[in-house]
Amino acid sequence: MNIRLWNARILTMEETVPIFEGEIWVQQDRITYVGAGKEEEVPVWDMEIDCERNLLMPGFKNAHTHSGMTLLRSYADDLPLHEWLHGQVFPVEAKMNQEDIYYLTKLAVLEYLTSGVTSIFDMYLTPESIASACSDTGMRCVLTGAVNNFSQSVEQMESWYEKFNEKESLISFLPGFHAEYTSSKELMAQIASLAHRLKAPVYVHLSETKEEVEGCVERYGMTPGIFLDSLGMFEYGGGIYHGVYLTEEEIALFKKKNIHVVTNPGSNTKLASGIAPIQDFLKAGLNVAIGTDGPASNNSLDMFREMFLVTGLAKLREKDASAVDAMEVLKMATVNGARAMCLEDADVLAPGKLADLIMIDLQQPNMQPINNIAKNIVYSGSKQNVKMTMINGRILYRDGKFYVGEEAHDIYEKANEIINRLK
Amino acid sequence: MNIRLWNARILTMEETVPIFEGEIWVQQDRITYVGAGKEEEVPVWDMEIDCERNLLMPGFKNAHTHSGMTLLRSYADDLPLHEWLHGQVFPVEAKMNQEDIYYLTKLAVLEYLTSGVTSIFDMYLTPESIASACSDTGMRCVLTGAVNNFSQSVEQMESWYEKFNEKESLISFLPGFHAEYTSSKELMAQIASLAHRLKAPVYVHLSETKEEVEGCVERYGMTPGIFLDSLGMFEYGGGIYHGVYLTEEEIALFKKKNIHVVTNPGSNTKLASGIAPIQDFLKAGLNVAIGTDGPASNNSLDMFREMFLVTGLAKLREKDASAVDAMEVLKMATVNGARAMCLEDADVLAPGKLADLIMIDLQQPNMQPINNIAKNIVYSGSKQNVKMTMINGRILYRDGKFYVGEEAHDIYEKANEIINRLK
Repeated sequence: MNIRLWNARILTMEETVPIFEGEIWVQQDRITYVGAGKEEEVPVWDMEIDCERNLLMPGFKNAHTHSGMTLLRSYADDLPLHEWLHGQVFPVEAKMNQEDIYYLTKLAVLEYLTSGVTSIFDMYLTPESIASACSDTGMRCVLTGAVNNFSQSVEQMESWYEKFNEKESLISFLPGFHAEYTSSKELMAQIASLAHRLKAPVYVHLSETKEEVEGCVERYGMTPGIFLDSLGMFEYGGGIYHGVYLTEEEIALFKKKNIHVVTNPGSNTKLASGIAPIQDFLKAGLNVAIGTDGPASNNSLDMFREMFLVTGLAKLREKDASAVDAMEVLKMATVNGARAMCLEDADVLAPGKLADLIMIDLQQPNMQPINNIAKNIVYSGSKQNVKMTMINGRILYRDGKFYVGEEAHDIYEKANEIINRLK
Repeated sequence: MNIRLWNARILTMEETVPIFEGEIWVQQDRITYVGAGKEEEVPVWDMEIDCERNLLMPGFKNAHTHSGMTLLRSYADDLPLHEWLHGQVFPVEAKMNQEDIYYLTKLAVLEYLTSGVTSIFDMYLTPESIASACSDTGMRCVLTGAVNNFSQSVEQMESWYEKFNEKESLISFLPGFHAEYTSSKELMAQIASLAHRLKAPVYVHLSETKEEVEGCVERYGMTPGIFLDSLGMFEYGGGIYHGVYLTEEEIALFKKKNIHVVTNPGSNTKLASGIAPIQDFLKAGLNVAIGTDGPASNNSLDMFREMFLVTGLAKLREKDASAVDAMEVLKMATVNGARAMCLEDADVLAPGKLADLIMIDLQQPNMQPINNIAKNIVYSGSKQNVKMTMINGRILYRDGKFYVGEEAHDIYEKANEIINRLK
């Protein structure tokens, strides 16, 4: 489909390009024009959308999530971490089947679309069902492995890596494992050697809690980042989720090895894990991206909340209202996320890039007056402002309606059936 | 107008009443029935609304705000507090006239409605223009004085108290002053004596920053709460905004004197002021309410963000994921707010109470599955879920449309004119 989006304000997220007025052309899955309003040489369109001077910008990249956990939203809140995980989460997860995860991921996709998310980095039990849910709805998804002592194997991961990296697909796969504290040294050595064989980056939960770091130091005499590096884990780069308790030594190492850090402030807040030192990451030149984490621990899949928390918590941590400014946060939620997820073609709005973009409704009271749009998005934006979400050139959400091949209502019904059966 | 709201889920916020299915009748400005679905004895209605099993609950009470500061949303962010206030906020405020504040307050009212706010507790430069903006749009507003060494006087405050406390009005007035650090001892003594004369409570910004507390101790040898009490300020009760650095002694005093504490987590986060000890307040039995503070420091007027922050920041502060649970937060945002604002008739949904209520859209992905609705509202709710806001029996916002006597677009235009003229 060829779509012309005209009469728009445009934030390309390219460095040094300020917001300007103009239009964007989308032909099939790619952007073919970004610039001033055109009157001539305009091709024939399947659809022309008057953006009414609302803002077009790259969609948000949710760089860490476990979509299938929508089941556990508000199922077990306000509990200490251990009780939450072992008493509530694990027992229910053990009862979930592939079809359950398929529908629960679809439910998450709907929520991503309302929040302007155009790609997700998903680690969960059954990559196949996540891939199907995303393909069927039209969501771009980078899968990663959740290998650990109890589920998934290095062999499975290798087969997923081969299966899910076709060109022009919405789905890709990058090696990953759950965490140091759930994996044996032997298993981690196998994962490192797979990464060498594939020349691929590796992604993992790391330094989410103080206890996790202390446990690793006790087991191996090293903090988790240093320990994994000693196994050769990051020879071809990779990324870590959370990073609340990274040491200076780890930050320096991650800079050297080009390791992305995905921060998850909503989850770290709700589970009382702590506040990540984002300002230190930025000072060291790390690539920082943002993820919601799964809906069991957050419980929202809302990039607006995450963006506010990234800067807000940094301000509290540094006792400095000028810490981590709004444009930096917008970069994390878009360009940096695309880098962390190896989606180089989905980072900014420019000809040749993938048509993964959103329209932000500026005609809402929380965006007025229109004085500084970027700051408005980070400091007062909300899901209410997402007027359209387009992925791969397809409009999947517009003016509150979903276009994902299945009625939202049917997906809700399925999710309610599952929670009632499993709880 | 008589309105029947049927086929609803209902959360009355009365203690021990769980969510049930039924209907609510609104006749003029009051609720006349809350209970099971009725087929008989139903009066004739001006309007019948099928709630489609969405949730009716009391509207949120925004218990501390400066609505007129919408002008300064995203005008000066990411700055240290002193530079923000003296270099940016004060110079622009000095140029605002009454008509400006009237329109800027109207802009804020629109945003409150999108966030399910049915009454506000507003402290700002010109109470008359705030009162007009609220009367004209239909917002319930409790005004308080902003007296300090530089603006407003005790005499003015007394006249506002007389003028704005008519029965059956949307507007009321309670004595208040800006803060200890902007008021002379003599002025504060006059305010205390006014409170005695009126037998009225007094409201004030207190213990927002560490520097404020240190300054007061230096000046008077006492922390601000103890010092104000020594002037007889709280003889008839009152309330304080922020309270980030309250001492144990102050908490005990406030309990004894029935002083309400209004927490403002969004503002305290963005200005890096700190995290209030909410759990200590609750343990001591204080009445804790929630306010957004003004849009210059927040920048959002969003009670959903505030609710998540109240519990989230408490969890971080206490390093305990079980701290301050969701129901407690919902109580703060509704019942406790009504108490703090002396709006006893707007606290819960029951016959005889004021018809200040909202409909929460449960047919959105962030509210699914429907497992624990109260937790869903606090942990994953957003403005997107506010389907209707009713104040004093009038529907002011429904399905994204405003019914406030003036087009939203015209109010936006006015706000943009003002910022362009004053900046």
